[in-house]
Amino acid sequence: MAWTLEELAKRLGGEIRGDGDIEISGVGSLTDAGDGDLAFLARSSYQAYLAESAAAAVILAPDDARDYQGNCIVLDNPHVAFAKAIALIYPETPAAAGVHPNAIVAATANVSTTASVGALSVIEAGAEIGADVRIGTNVWVGEGAILGPGTCVHAHVAIHAGCHVGARCTLFAGTVIGSDGFGYANDAGAWVKIPHRGAVVIGDDVSIGANATIDRGVLGDTRIDNGVKLDNHVHIAHNVHIGEHTAMAAFTGVAGSTRIGRRCTFGGRAGVLDHLEIVDDVHVTATSLISRSILCPGTFSSTLPAEEADQWRKNVARLRQLDKMARKIGRIEKQLVANSTEEDI
Amino acid sequence: MAWTLEELAKRLGGEIRGDGDIEISGVGSLTDAGDGDLAFLARSSYQAYLAESAAAAVILAPDDARDYQGNCIVLDNPHVAFAKAIALIYPETPAAAGVHPNAIVAATANVSTTASVGALSVIEAGAEIGADVRIGTNVWVGEGAILGPGTCVHAHVAIHAGCHVGARCTLFAGTVIGSDGFGYANDAGAWVKIPHRGAVVIGDDVSIGANATIDRGVLGDTRIDNGVKLDNHVHIAHNVHIGEHTAMAAFTGVAGSTRIGRRCTFGGRAGVLDHLEIVDDVHVTATSLISRSILCPGTFSSTLPAEEADQWRKNVARLRQLDKMARKIGRIEKQLVANSTEEDI
Amino acid sequence: MAWTLEELAKRLGGEIRGDGDIEISGVGSLTDAGDGDLAFLARSSYQAYLAESAAAAVILAPDDARDYQGNCIVLDNPHVAFAKAIALIYPETPAAAGVHPNAIVAATANVSTTASVGALSVIEAGAEIGADVRIGTNVWVGEGAILGPGTCVHAHVAIHAGCHVGARCTLFAGTVIGSDGFGYANDAGAWVKIPHRGAVVIGDDVSIGANATIDRGVLGDTRIDNGVKLDNHVHIAHNVHIGEHTAMAAFTGVAGSTRIGRRCTFGGRAGVLDHLEIVDDVHVTATSLISRSILCPGTFSSTLPAEEADQWRKNVARLRQLDKMARKIGRIEKQLVANSTEEDI
Repeated sequence: MAWTLEELAKRLGGEIRGDGDIEISGVGSLTDAGDGDLAFLARSSYQAYLAESAAAAVILAPDDARDYQGNCIVLDNPHVAFAKAIALIYPETPAAAGVHPNAIVAATANVSTTASVGALSVIEAGAEIGADVRIGTNVWVGEGAILGPGTCVHAHVAIHAGCHVGARCTLFAGTVIGSDGFGYANDAGAWVKIPHRGAVVIGDDVSIGANATIDRGVLGDTRIDNGVKLDNHVHIAHNVHIGEHTAMAAFTGVAGSTRIGRRCTFGGRAGVLDHLEIVDDVHVTATSLISRSILCPGTFSSTLPAEEADQWRKNVARLRQLDKMARKIGRIEKQLVANSTEEDI
Repeated sequence: MAWTLEELAKRLGGEIRGDGDIEISGVGSLTDAGDGDLAFLARSSYQAYLAESAAAAVILAPDDARDYQGNCIVLDNPHVAFAKAIALIYPETPAAAGVHPNAIVAATANVSTTASVGALSVIEAGAEIGADVRIGTNVWVGEGAILGPGTCVHAHVAIHAGCHVGARCTLFAGTVIGSDGFGYANDAGAWVKIPHRGAVVIGDDVSIGANATIDRGVLGDTRIDNGVKLDNHVHIAHNVHIGEHTAMAAFTGVAGSTRIGRRCTFGGRAGVLDHLEIVDDVHVTATSLISRSILCPGTFSSTLPAEEADQWRKNVARLRQLDKMARKIGRIEKQLVANSTEEDI
Repeated sequence: MAWTLEELAKRLGGEIRGDGDIEISGVGSLTDAGDGDLAFLARSSYQAYLAESAAAAVILAPDDARDYQGNCIVLDNPHVAFAKAIALIYPETPAAAGVHPNAIVAATANVSTTASVGALSVIEAGAEIGADVRIGTNVWVGEGAILGPGTCVHAHVAIHAGCHVGARCTLFAGTVIGSDGFGYANDAGAWVKIPHRGAVVIGDDVSIGANATIDRGVLGDTRIDNGVKLDNHVHIAHNVHIGEHTAMAAFTGVAGSTRIGRRCTFGGRAGVLDHLEIVDDVHVTATSLISRSILCPGTFSSTLPAEEADQWRKNVARLRQLDKMARKIGRIEKQLVANSTEEDI
């Protein structure tokens, strides 16, 4: 969809410089964008690309715009504006409201007339599907589950009985909400299942990636608060609580009953052990494992970057001798002190 | 469902102390439980919570019960009793027997009259569905697959042709049983697929979490023995054999042809390389990688706990110099010996 | 299906030794194979098993065949021949062509008359399903998606709108192609979604394991080139490009916009951070994390093999002191030099 630069600037809340009448019909990176395309400067360090960009116009922060002579929209957060510009220039047509004739909706389920339910989806008894909800194909919504207004559920998602999903959430394909957690008591070598009678309660504006799993609680609920963003293959165990606006990249796993604060970020394949407490504003780098509660904000890591394999193997072999090595250093130090003392005498 | 404490004690096989007539209608933790609730003391170290608990009654081990004056059930394994108490107090209503009119069952499939098959599930030719089996919605059971009595299969599970699942198993949503393994022969740079003609054979009382994958064998079968418990996102490769009552937490992966013993436990994201043998009673901590066969029981680890990122980065930089550092210590030691000798002369 | 050894040798392109008329009706490992079975010698180090094998015939490389007196087929790549032999001896019957009466195919979708579409699968408007395509049950093919000739799609796969899959590909059960990537801009603590308007473009002869996820690009496409093989639970983020014949074992994850070359291999649970470039012929060992671009071929590792837990804990404790330890060694060295100098004076 085409816009004049001026219209876009108005929508994005930025100041226009240059020709406001040019027409913008596409979006690209600084290096890819051409005629009719809008680009954006993600970081000041990309200034070099800016000079050479063939983009019709650029979104810039005030500092980066100072010396720029081309058409641009100047605003404080170009990254956010870029996200909004894509949505404006390439709008999506939402599915039309209505229940597909091949969907199966229980008589006691309550589906809003503005919601859409895709082919071969099953909505069980007592479920509530809010206004403007979009449900894809082959989705299962269990008994009494609730989907808030504007929420979008993709193909093959399973939402177990009694789980709540808030407003404007997105659940990507293959995700499972409310499966029983991994809880067993050991009875002389064999495992006895601990029944899971809690649920999963998800706030508003939450996004959960494809093939993720959020387990229901044993007695209380597993809770994912407003604005949380979870990537593909994320696993949230029973009775976990994740605070508002926390984001977790792919394969991140959180073990049972752990509480995680607000605005935390987790790099890919990060992990958190069970029964821990992580405060607000904690950042965990990719592949790191949190094994103790974190009570002060900060960045935490056990990331191990790869190196050339032969060199790595030598160092890892030494790692296995590290305790011995440390003791040896201690002995050397003592010897050195003893030597010095002798000499001093 | 409400029980008198006495009835519960009888069912759980414990000795009652205090008022056997009080009515129990809920379950809670020591800190959450209130009027009418049963709690349990998981570890002796939680004694402090016991004194302050508002629970109507508590499940306790004999040692912990000695000084307790409140209503309680005394037995040897409170954790197991707690699991059983939840099942008694919050019973589930299983799905009614019968095939949903929108399920598709092949004429030659054999579905027990006491089994239930959910909406939009597909049971292929020659499959056998045992007594009291519960199959959810959108499940696929391939040609000739067998589900033993009492087994429960949740939404979107795929069970490929010829696979066997024993009695009283639970397969959670989105799990794939019997997909081809990752086997390719390299032909001058390109990969040639190795066909997989084995199957997956799962014993009794096995539980497999959501979005897990168990691959079929190349020629022989992949085998999961009785009582094994696998969490969400677990991956078991072709021709693996897992012994009875072994448990694996989320994201654990086992590579091809490895044999794992009985009663082993694997923390989250543990891994085992291919063609290894792990004996009975081996325990692997979270995120650890087993790269060699383990022939004696014990606990094994390569878990790396995160620390504050700046500190971590310094230590990791040193890790890359570890081999050099070890050589330097060796040289220092020699020098020190040389010095001492000189002095002695 | 039974073959004479001579017929098999002809099909596999090898030289026959011994009795070409014996009938082969099965395949086994050197240790399992018996009467009528064909085995193969995978590595020269397995020669010991060869002598004792009860196999009717063996596939061997020329060097290993020199001293072998039994029936055999001699050729350069026994592993590839073994793969082909399994396919010949245990042929699969592909699903018959045709659309299942309970599949839902949009009027404007174009399904080849030689393709098959399984029960309860949904093919949306404008999708193109090529010749000899095999689609399982409960599969969703989004609007305008394209499946090339001979491609096989298993149960519960979701292929989002506009994605292209080449010829002779296999997508295993539960895999999601073309879900939105994990892209958000941060707006004063809250996350604003970056719309994803690119697609996923998959070449020919690609195989993707069960419950994997390949995200669509933001503006450009995510690209998986010819001959790539991905295992179960693999995650490929938005705008990644993977070169021809690269293979990735289970749980491997590649973060956004990274470019990976041809003929690379990744062990299980390997990871690659975002915006990197990895050249052709790079090999990454299991669980290793690539955090920088790799511009020369080679093998890279940050694999940490587990050891006995008590010993590991001691060494990890020392790892946390590694920077201090290195400084101490430096001081010792200086002291030693100072001592020597004093003595020299």
